[in-house]
Amino acid sequence: MPLALAAMALSPSAAATQQSPEAATAVPQPRSAQELLDASSPSDWRTPDPANTLYMDLAAGRVVIELAPGFAPAHVANIRTLARERYWDGLSIYRSQDNFVVQFGDPTEDAAARKPIGSARPQLPAEFTRTSEGLAFDRLPDRDGWAPEVGFADGFPAARDPASGQAWLAHCYGTLGAGRDVAADSSNGTELYVVDGQSPRQLDRNITVVGRVVQGMELLSVIPRGPAPMGFYAHPEQRTPIRSIALAADLPEAQRTPLQLLRTDTALFAQLVEMRRNRRDDWYKVPAGHIDLCNVPLPVRAPPPAAAAE
Amino acid sequence: MPLALAAMALSPSAAATQQSPEAATAVPQPRSAQELLDASSPSDWRTPDPANTLYMDLAAGRVVIELAPGFAPAHVANIRTLARERYWDGLSIYRSQDNFVVQFGDPTEDAAARKPIGSARPQLPAEFTRTSEGLAFDRLPDRDGWAPEVGFADGFPAARDPASGQAWLAHCYGTLGAGRDVAADSSNGTELYVVDGQSPRQLDRNITVVGRVVQGMELLSVIPRGPAPMGFYAHPEQRTPIRSIALAADLPEAQRTPLQLLRTDTALFAQLVEMRRNRRDDWYKVPAGHIDLCNVPLPVRAPPPAAAAE
Repeated sequence: MPLALAAMALSPSAAATQQSPEAATAVPQPRSAQELLDASSPSDWRTPDPANTLYMDLAAGRVVIELAPGFAPAHVANIRTLARERYWDGLSIYRSQDNFVVQFGDPTEDAAARKPIGSARPQLPAEFTRTSEGLAFDRLPDRDGWAPEVGFADGFPAARDPASGQAWLAHCYGTLGAGRDVAADSSNGTELYVVDGQSPRQLDRNITVVGRVVQGMELLSVIPRGPAPMGFYAHPEQRTPIRSIALAADLPEAQRTPLQLLRTDTALFAQLVEMRRNRRDDWYKVPAGHIDLCNVPLPVRAPPPAAAAE
Repeated sequence: MPLALAAMALSPSAAATQQSPEAATAVPQPRSAQELLDASSPSDWRTPDPANTLYMDLAAGRVVIELAPGFAPAHVANIRTLARERYWDGLSIYRSQDNFVVQFGDPTEDAAARKPIGSARPQLPAEFTRTSEGLAFDRLPDRDGWAPEVGFADGFPAARDPASGQAWLAHCYGTLGAGRDVAADSSNGTELYVVDGQSPRQLDRNITVVGRVVQGMELLSVIPRGPAPMGFYAHPEQRTPIRSIALAADLPEAQRTPLQLLRTDTALFAQLVEMRRNRRDDWYKVPAGHIDLCNVPLPVRAPPPAAAAE
């Protein structure tokens, strides 16, 4: 039978080294990328600041978010306050629009009935873009339709416009943004959304991006969709309860999730990107010669024992 | 309180006309796009050929797929045979890799133990590309990093290379492809995958695309993810059973799901795309001036009563 079968990849070891089938449909790349990552040095990795790390705990598990104070300082400060005062505990994910976003916070319409925001600020400036001056930017050479230049800043997918001198965070899978009304400055950080569909880059420069999910996207991406067109649930019981959202810095060490993120300013990262831009394994017949910003993998790992002991 | 709230959008009527909040985070555009669609004429729509329409019935509901015989005639012919003989009935979705694909068919490793394919052909030619000669191509003016030209052919997101004279279907959200082994001609159409993450355009020209999900993506996109890196479930009971996959043409009229797809060769479609490329509503402050191929919406509707009566 000429067709090789999928099952070789069913065991984890086979998946790691797989030469096979439909399996291969997919991911010859983890194999070689993993080899690269296995050969990384400790300095290729960074540990997110606990003051910028948010844990969203759901019944299904923990979603880990890195905040982006370099781009949205006022929003991040407010989100830290809201998390410290456990604003979101007991609230819910109340919207899930297929191929777009999940959104959480307080869906209450009547302003007087909304959950009080404690000592958080009720109004914040729009933080859609920032100056690119002084911003380290690990630029991708690849062309992009949405922005003159794309790359990574503070480890986040980002874009830059040399003409305007502005930089901004890009809407990719996992991006966390602050929902707003028609007024540009109408977000206060209580209503947040996470992108779980095709990158909606049209939102770039139109809304304040506050961070990115770095672990646990698979918990958000499977949340049942609400009715079209916008994905707001018709019935409150369809919402997904949020047990808590807390800042890592506010939790005792034992309740934190240690992890490391691959730095984007290293030769290793550039190699990894090139490996995805031009696949050279047996499976790919035509290397793309290109990669889109939102297709670049941003690896995360548990700290290795040695690093944990440091 | 300066922050407008999300809940206005909670009722369907409000969602359709919403001016509001975090809600607006998202989708001011369906409002105006809907107005455009409401003003469409019957000739703006097409009804997919029942011989090219596949129904995947899950416990959760029906996924409707349009096949692409113009790009993968041999695969589509085999898939028609497999569906007619109910090859997939009782098989499963056995893989779900976050931000990538779900895959279904028979995961059995041992070739001798695999479900027989009946009168389907065990081997097919690779159908990665086709000649662009004679192919109607509704080109987008927007730049693309993956291909010299992108647009729509036979209603599918597609790409074209004037230098090589070749065209191919693009991997967007909802794309259906035929899994294969390392050999280019190792797919027979039994193992199929649907893209449910960021468009993996690197697969373009590397695998045979056989169609696209036109309705029911929200049933596939929420399927629980299998373990990393490839998403194959560790335990068979985690798989999602397939009740049946059948060709619309093989079912009695009463069991079919009537629907219409917006044509991509019309002035209306071009207007709709332009509306998304440059949003002019109150919510958007900076129109993107660009749209990526895989961000273009491809509307589907139930046939209006008049059309149904024709």
